[in-house]
Amino acid sequence: MRILLVGASGTIGQLVTHRLLARNHEIITGGRFSGDIHVDLTSKESIENLFKKAGAVDAIISTAGAAEFAPVHSLTPEINQTAVLSKLLGQINLALVGQHYLYENGSITLITGIMKDDPIPGGASAAMANGGVAAFVKSAAIDLKNGQRINCVSPNILEESMEDYGESFIGFTPVSGKEVANAFLKSVEGKQTGQEYKVY
Amino acid sequence: MRILLVGASGTIGQLVTHRLLARNHEIITGGRFSGDIHVDLTSKESIENLFKKAGAVDAIISTAGAAEFAPVHSLTPEINQTAVLSKLLGQINLALVGQHYLYENGSITLITGIMKDDPIPGGASAAMANGGVAAFVKSAAIDLKNGQRINCVSPNILEESMEDYGESFIGFTPVSGKEVANAFLKSVEGKQTGQEYKVY
Repeated sequence: MRILLVGASGTIGQLVTHRLLARNHEIITGGRFSGDIHVDLTSKESIENLFKKAGAVDAIISTAGAAEFAPVHSLTPEINQTAVLSKLLGQINLALVGQHYLYENGSITLITGIMKDDPIPGGASAAMANGGVAAFVKSAAIDLKNGQRINCVSPNILEESMEDYGESFIGFTPVSGKEVANAFLKSVEGKQTGQEYKVY
Repeated sequence: MRILLVGASGTIGQLVTHRLLARNHEIITGGRFSGDIHVDLTSKESIENLFKKAGAVDAIISTAGAAEFAPVHSLTPEINQTAVLSKLLGQINLALVGQHYLYENGSITLITGIMKDDPIPGGASAAMANGGVAAFVKSAAIDLKNGQRINCVSPNILEESMEDYGESFIGFTPVSGKEVANAFLKSVEGKQTGQEYKVY
């Protein structure tokens, strides 16, 4: 399949790329500062430009989206905007624009994260974005046309990320990157839609 | 208790007002075009003005938030903005600003809705907002200080609303407004936090 992967340079993006290449898929990578096509997910125009350059694809995958971390008592509407514009709307706009560049029976796979189900301190803004994406996916699935599908993957903290982020996930049992990459593969090559694959 | 209720003129807002008045609470109502204090939830400045006028309260309740309905294949980032700015960020900004006007052990109660769990056609934008609010609530609860609490209520379609909206909820079994109002009362007078009361 011809697959557009946004966020390919991140830890999960690299794992997903390897997994898909091993299945002989063609990957077009999109990223803020790297990849085949540069894209700023906070800009609808940039997302439209991404698809104009990429052309029609069989699958769209996002392993991207930023959010700021702050305890709620010091979280402001302004700080919350990073998650709104990037992790939430960046991904949803990728789906809304991308559906029109997606072949029949094509799939969209977005990324959420465990903190919406299992909160960590300072994670409310990211959790909000995760929850919004997951609910959008479940609901959008019943509306898509031409056999198009949409799912999301909600990863736990990865074994590969424990050194960098483990302090925020004390007591969480990390999962392997391979399991997370497999969930993306299931979404792409499987037939399910409206699912949130929780890799916990 | 001294309670600020935003969205008091709506069907659920009226039911909640009656329930709280019967418990002898003092209600300050906020609304776009009605109520004791006018507020535009899409404006952070208007929310700040609301709290400056209302002063400190024991509880903040939202039964407000708009969203547009459109099938995903015709949903655009622009149409989605109504739900983002009103139903999602309107409520979250009410909580973020309002926490600083909330007494010790005070509560915040927001509103979501069944369509995030049980999708209806054209409901993806509203579902996104509902999912974002629910995940925010769950996560914010572990961060709030001074015993402050936060919950949300996710109502099914109401018996009282079947005549107006029943066509979008075919096969749903409506619930009574009294049950929904009770869930708000539980959030206000109870001790729980981080909960989503699903009245399904």
